[in-house]
Amino acid sequence: MASKLIAIVAGVGPGTGGSVALKFASKYPVVLLARNPENYQGLAKEINDKGGKAIGISTDISDSNSVKNAVSQIKNEFGQDVGAAAAIFNASGGFLRKSFLEVPEEAFRASLDVSVNGGFLFSQATLPLLLKGVELKSEHPPSLIFTGATASVKSNARMATFATGKWALRALSQSLAREFGPQGVHVAHAIIDGVIDIPRTKDFLKELGPNAKLSPEGIANDYWWLHTQPVTNFTWEIDLRPAVEKW
Amino acid sequence: MASKLIAIVAGVGPGTGGSVALKFASKYPVVLLARNPENYQGLAKEINDKGGKAIGISTDISDSNSVKNAVSQIKNEFGQDVGAAAAIFNASGGFLRKSFLEVPEEAFRASLDVSVNGGFLFSQATLPLLLKGVELKSEHPPSLIFTGATASVKSNARMATFATGKWALRALSQSLAREFGPQGVHVAHAIIDGVIDIPRTKDFLKELGPNAKLSPEGIANDYWWLHTQPVTNFTWEIDLRPAVEKW
Amino acid sequence: MASKLIAIVAGVGPGTGGSVALKFASKYPVVLLARNPENYQGLAKEINDKGGKAIGISTDISDSNSVKNAVSQIKNEFGQDVGAAAAIFNASGGFLRKSFLEVPEEAFRASLDVSVNGGFLFSQATLPLLLKGVELKSEHPPSLIFTGATASVKSNARMATFATGKWALRALSQSLAREFGPQGVHVAHAIIDGVIDIPRTKDFLKELGPNAKLSPEGIANDYWWLHTQPVTNFTWEIDLRPAVEKW
Amino acid sequence: MASKLIAIVAGVGPGTGGSVALKFASKYPVVLLARNPENYQGLAKEINDKGGKAIGISTDISDSNSVKNAVSQIKNEFGQDVGAAAAIFNASGGFLRKSFLEVPEEAFRASLDVSVNGGFLFSQATLPLLLKGVELKSEHPPSLIFTGATASVKSNARMATFATGKWALRALSQSLAREFGPQGVHVAHAIIDGVIDIPRTKDFLKELGPNAKLSPEGIANDYWWLHTQPVTNFTWEIDLRPAVEKW
Repeated sequence: MASKLIAIVAGVGPGTGGSVALKFASKYPVVLLARNPENYQGLAKEINDKGGKAIGISTDISDSNSVKNAVSQIKNEFGQDVGAAAAIFNASGGFLRKSFLEVPEEAFRASLDVSVNGGFLFSQATLPLLLKGVELKSEHPPSLIFTGATASVKSNARMATFATGKWALRALSQSLAREFGPQGVHVAHAIIDGVIDIPRTKDFLKELGPNAKLSPEGIANDYWWLHTQPVTNFTWEIDLRPAVEKW
Repeated sequence: MASKLIAIVAGVGPGTGGSVALKFASKYPVVLLARNPENYQGLAKEINDKGGKAIGISTDISDSNSVKNAVSQIKNEFGQDVGAAAAIFNASGGFLRKSFLEVPEEAFRASLDVSVNGGFLFSQATLPLLLKGVELKSEHPPSLIFTGATASVKSNARMATFATGKWALRALSQSLAREFGPQGVHVAHAIIDGVIDIPRTKDFLKELGPNAKLSPEGIANDYWWLHTQPVTNFTWEIDLRPAVEKW
Repeated sequence: MASKLIAIVAGVGPGTGGSVALKFASKYPVVLLARNPENYQGLAKEINDKGGKAIGISTDISDSNSVKNAVSQIKNEFGQDVGAAAAIFNASGGFLRKSFLEVPEEAFRASLDVSVNGGFLFSQATLPLLLKGVELKSEHPPSLIFTGATASVKSNARMATFATGKWALRALSQSLAREFGPQGVHVAHAIIDGVIDIPRTKDFLKELGPNAKLSPEGIANDYWWLHTQPVTNFTWEIDLRPAVEKW
Repeated sequence: MASKLIAIVAGVGPGTGGSVALKFASKYPVVLLARNPENYQGLAKEINDKGGKAIGISTDISDSNSVKNAVSQIKNEFGQDVGAAAAIFNASGGFLRKSFLEVPEEAFRASLDVSVNGGFLFSQATLPLLLKGVELKSEHPPSLIFTGATASVKSNARMATFATGKWALRALSQSLAREFGPQGVHVAHAIIDGVIDIPRTKDFLKELGPNAKLSPEGIANDYWWLHTQPVTNFTWEIDLRPAVEKW
């Protein structure tokens, strides 16, 4: 049975997505989706070298054909009757901090395209696999988890591009939680409220000491915890921030 | 001076948009935007017959060329240096209540396109005119008002298509309120939480008595009230519902 | 009929309460409640001198006997069958900004006592009069309006004393809106998010220019607007802040 | 060091409090607070019999002398320099569903007294011990966790008594999270949105199947998970509900 259950992570890279994939790889074969193969190749190798199982599929999450192709590859690899124990949507539109009147229409549309249409396509592609996971009686309720941000609940000046997509994605996750919870799928949304500690942010917030940034491994642990909640005790939303973060 | 200040309403028809246009026409020339001319022709005639001034422009609010063309026509009609005292975004993506796995991608995209990209294009087109209104010292702070719904704050099962757009639009309005409030433009968002009393809903909620539906004229009064708030006392958000509505 | 309808304002002084009383006095006899007669005497005189009608009653809003006594005096003055067109709760517990471990228990209890128990007693005392106002077919739906603050929706560090009371008061107003709306009473809550322009705050925020503080007259206009909403279009909550306020 | 760190649970009984105490007893000596010794005696015996350590102290959480006495007993038992690894506030004012005009003042005050003043006194009593836990370098950040309910975020008709207390408690927890997070104490709030499966609710919701009620052990696992989050990844708030719950 277990061999029929996989985890799918969209938006992998050096931060949350990568750590989540590593965490879930300890129990499930994982499928890594990213547009750029460079973002999953090292990670897939790491997981496979450790004795886990991972495949990467180059996917444009905002393109329905690309997402359909990913599902086909998943079924070719794991069988037509594969189920998912977890699907994590960690992709995000561009973080464009700009005076509103200077935001190019294409940038606005492109950001929404990943955050919202990407979230839509990923959900429509993975929910049938998650429902299959329910049928296969996965040990933990199959889980669809979305990564949010501060901008999922607060829309600051000059942040409209990013925030519109993040609010919409939160709405998507809430609607799906209400529709698919009673069918046994656990839909959750995590508000990551702070800077994540990745190579790119190495020099950020140094003045606040060594604990000022969110640990990606910590986030992965929290996603795993959400995943292991029983069907009687589902959490839809958590917030996550460093203790020293102002909010 | 007053002749240089207009009101622009996107999304007119027999409900909120029409009543708002009539209300604002008592003080300003109004520009009526709708894709289908049938939606503004009668209204424009009614306003002009009453001694007000109204023009309609057929506009696809989700298409940037169409929106740009509307602005050109406005400037042709009212002068290159026209300012806006009010801009009301009352357009909405389709209200598609459907099991999520049955929502066609095109329907999802089309709904977002009106609610979010439409809101974006309308805001980028009208904010320069509203800022011009500030410069022209309009009697009331120039106002950019967005029409929301129950689904702007609650994303129910099978409502993801409509709710994603409405949450995103609310995020847009909040970001714009924070950016343009300090520049003198009053950005507001109204959560219409109930059924509006229009010909199409004539037979709805009869069992709840004669006051179970929102009056479009009442909504228009509320938008006007928002418009007249001084720069020291801006409201970003109001909710509106019939007294008998359950919430 | 009109002579049977009064407005009652708890918590009058040089700011919101006083301006609201003056505004409502243009249509209704007003009853001014404050613990200290100095807070209503000048105001009552001003209203009576202008040809309106006002009486002040020294009332400890957190003491049930004192509130009962106020109701008795109201009935003695206006008749046993008097109705209320409006009741405004503008009293507030102390604004104690202090490290939590240094907050004296008595200060915490005293603050709650005004904000929450005061709100409770005022509502239990005035709702029968407001329901009587419904019976008397007051022109505008009888209104019970609560004054909130930034701390009604955000509970900052070192603000627990004030915020607990304000959150509780908001909860009270929401529950009452749901219970008494269907009976024709309009219950509303206003989040005053900024500094109010009163003598005591004369020197605050000067660096932000002449419009950085909320005008009490503006707030009074907004309360009046809430009061005039028809039964088909009730607003439960508005926020109010200066355009330049950061939020 | 570990022997110097305890867990304190206020409001134990057959549901959440009891399960949380059992869970935390696997690592820490636990102190059980309840007014009625019957509510902790069996539980203390069960923990002690299993090789853990538990003491019960009869405490009226809304009475400052009673709470001070509890702290004295804790120090007598565990030493003057005892620290706390966790403090759980699970007490609650009465759940009085009643038409507002029929709520007796005493019932309203009594409910607030437990929820809000109780939360205040418990926090003031335990925070010094939690800060001591930080000093003692407890393995997991010392945690102060509050049990909320549906009524912590929604104030329904006829629920004002319970909801005012729960909203205030949520405000308290948010303010404390902001003040004490930077000092290393993890303050969290759990919204329990559904019926908890305890003897008293045995016959509730049978029509919804075997998974319609929250498992107290599940809640205890979630509190434990919150407790183990590192200082870089604190969650302030989670919601918890059965998958089939409508929300």
